[in-house]
Amino acid sequence: MIHAVIMAGGSGTRFWPESREARPKQLLPILGGRAMVAETALRLDPLVPPERTWVVTNRLQVDGVRTACPELPPENVLVEPCARNTAPCVGLAAVAIRARDPEAVLVVLAADHLISPLDQFQRALRAAAEAARQPGALVTFGIPPRYPATGYGYIRRGAELGRHEGLSCSAVDAFVEKPDEARAREFLEQGTYLWNSGMFAWRADTLLDAVAQHMPELSAGLDELAAEVGGDGFEAALERLYPGFPSVPVDVGIMEKADGAVVLETPFHWSDIGSWKAVYDELDHDADGNAAVLPAGGALLAQDSRGVLAYSSEPQTVAVIGVDDVVIVRTGDALLVAARDRTEEVKALIERLKAEGRTELL
Amino acid sequence: MIHAVIMAGGSGTRFWPESREARPKQLLPILGGRAMVAETALRLDPLVPPERTWVVTNRLQVDGVRTACPELPPENVLVEPCARNTAPCVGLAAVAIRARDPEAVLVVLAADHLISPLDQFQRALRAAAEAARQPGALVTFGIPPRYPATGYGYIRRGAELGRHEGLSCSAVDAFVEKPDEARAREFLEQGTYLWNSGMFAWRADTLLDAVAQHMPELSAGLDELAAEVGGDGFEAALERLYPGFPSVPVDVGIMEKADGAVVLETPFHWSDIGSWKAVYDELDHDADGNAAVLPAGGALLAQDSRGVLAYSSEPQTVAVIGVDDVVIVRTGDALLVAARDRTEEVKALIERLKAEGRTELL
Repeated sequence: MIHAVIMAGGSGTRFWPESREARPKQLLPILGGRAMVAETALRLDPLVPPERTWVVTNRLQVDGVRTACPELPPENVLVEPCARNTAPCVGLAAVAIRARDPEAVLVVLAADHLISPLDQFQRALRAAAEAARQPGALVTFGIPPRYPATGYGYIRRGAELGRHEGLSCSAVDAFVEKPDEARAREFLEQGTYLWNSGMFAWRADTLLDAVAQHMPELSAGLDELAAEVGGDGFEAALERLYPGFPSVPVDVGIMEKADGAVVLETPFHWSDIGSWKAVYDELDHDADGNAAVLPAGGALLAQDSRGVLAYSSEPQTVAVIGVDDVVIVRTGDALLVAARDRTEEVKALIERLKAEGRTELL
Repeated sequence: MIHAVIMAGGSGTRFWPESREARPKQLLPILGGRAMVAETALRLDPLVPPERTWVVTNRLQVDGVRTACPELPPENVLVEPCARNTAPCVGLAAVAIRARDPEAVLVVLAADHLISPLDQFQRALRAAAEAARQPGALVTFGIPPRYPATGYGYIRRGAELGRHEGLSCSAVDAFVEKPDEARAREFLEQGTYLWNSGMFAWRADTLLDAVAQHMPELSAGLDELAAEVGGDGFEAALERLYPGFPSVPVDVGIMEKADGAVVLETPFHWSDIGSWKAVYDELDHDADGNAAVLPAGGALLAQDSRGVLAYSSEPQTVAVIGVDDVVIVRTGDALLVAARDRTEEVKALIERLKAEGRTELL
C-alpha cells in the first residue's frame, strides 16, 4: 500500500512577519485556503487516505499540525525530539510505517510546497510508487526546470529505465549542487537536468536497507527504535536515541551514494514557495498585476499601483497609491513593506531582531 | 485681555486611514506628542491661560476636543450646530467673548497647524494683539514664503504701518488667490508677498463692526445671538439661527472688503500640515532620511530604504526592505502605503470608499 510521509519541520523564517518560530509556513494558509500542511494532506485524497498519511514534525509545531489536519489519526503524527535533518526523519517514518505494513511504499513529501493540478500530482504518485516497487529503487521526483533557478539542486538524468503512467523514469546520473546563473542556464538549455524537489518514493524496507549500507550508525539506532515501535517504550527510546543520530540530509547521506537512485520526471506545476515573491508569482493577479491574500471583509484598494502583493490573516483594508512591485504583509504586531524582488532579505531582518533580542517578534 | 480662539472644525480626510470623520487631524497626535488641538492650546502658555482660550468645534468632535484639552473650561468650548465656514465661526466666538470681556482682543488660530518655536510664536501674538488695538484694525498673520507654494493664498503687502515687538506690520494691498507655479515663483522673488495663514487678530468689537458693515445679514443674526449669551436660551438660539448664517470664509466676507486689514510678518516656522508628505517633512529624519511616529514599543526597522515615513498610533514594528520614499500608515482596520509625493491622492481613495458605501472606513 502507498503511505504518504509529510515532512513538516521547517522553521520558515522567510515569511516573517506572518511566519514565526511556532507558526512556520506549513501551518499558514500562505496562498489563501487552508494551512499548507493541510493542503498537502488533502492533495492525496483519494489516493492515500488519512489512515495512511503520516506527518513528521517537531514539538513546537505538533499542536499546530494536529489542529490543521484533524482528520489524521493521532498516532500518524511522529514528533522528532530535536532537528536532525531529513535522513533520520525519513528513517523514523520508515520504521514506524514498516511495523504496520511491511510491504509499504512511502511517498515522502514536503509540507510547504505548492503542487497543481491534483490529477497530475496523483498520476505522478502512482508512477513513483510503481517505480519504487522495483528491487532497490529509490525514486526522486525531478521537476522539469521552468527557468534558470539558482536556488535549487539539480538532477542529471541518465538512461531511461522505463515509463510508468506515461511518465519517464531514468537512472540518476548525478545530483548537482545549486548552480550559479550561467550553469543554471546551461542546465535549462541541455534538457537533461531536472530540479531536485526533495520529494521521494521508496519501499520502507528498501530505504532502511540503503540506510544500513550507507549510514550504518543511523541504521543501528533505527533498529533499536524499530524494536519499540507500537510499544510503551517507543517515546522514551526516541527521546534517548534521536539526539545521537547524525544530522544529514537524505539526499547527501543516501541518495547520492545509492546505486538504485532513479528519477521520475513530474508532469505537475511545482513551487517550493520560498519567499513572498514566490507567493505573489503563484497567485492570480488583477489587470494591474496586483494580488491579495486577505480574509473575507478585507480588500486591496490599488490606485495607480502595479505588481503589489497584500497579505494579512485578518480582514483588513490595504490601500496603495502610486507604488509598484512591493509586498505588504501585516500581522497583529508587525508590518513588512518590501521590494517584491528582495523579499528573501527578510532573513537579514530576522538576524537583526535576534541580535537586538526582540524575541517576541521571532 | 488677549483671548485665543482655536478653530477646530476641519474634517481632515487627507490623513486617512488615521483620520476619520469623527477623528480628524486636529484630534490626532499626527506629529507625535499630543493631539494637534492640544498642542495648539499648550503653545499659548503662559501668554493666554486656559480660561481665556476658546475652541469652536462641531458636534462630532466636541467630545474629542474636551478629552484632548481637559484644562479648558467647559463653557469655552463653543459647538457649531452645523458647518458655516469661518465668518460665522469667528462671529460666534466674538459675541461669546465680548460678553465676558468687552475689551477683548482675539487671536484666531487653526487647531491643526504646526508652529515653532514657542517664543517666536508668542512674540508674534503679542505684536498682533498690539496692532489689533488700533481702531478698526483687522490683523492677519502673513508667513514669509519658504518655497513657491501653489496650495496657499497670498497677501500682497502695502505700506508699512509700524513695528510691534520688532515685527513689521503693513497695510494689506491685496489678498491673492492660490497662484499657479509660475506666479508663485514671481511672488517668492518679489518679496512683497506673504502666505495667508488663515490666522487673525482683532478686537471682538472691531470684528463685529466689520461684520455689520460687510455682512449685515450675519450681523443681524449675531446680534440676536448676543442677546442670549450666558443665558438659558443661548443654545436654542444658536440652534435656530446658525443654520441660516451665510457659509462664507472670513477672508472673503470681511478681510478682502475691510479698510483696516493689516498684515503682520511672522517670525516663526509654520506649516498647515496638509498631507502625510508634510508630516514627513516636519519630522526629524535618521541618516537615511527615514522618520517614524510610533508609540513607545514600536520601531521602524529600515533595511536599505530611504525617505520612509512610518506612522501608527499603536506600538508596532514596521519593517521595510529596499523601498524608498513611501509613507506607511497603519490603523486597526486599514493600512496605507503611498508614494511620498502622492499622499494628497488619498482624497480620491476616500471618494472611492464613499462610492462603494464603505462608511465604516470613513
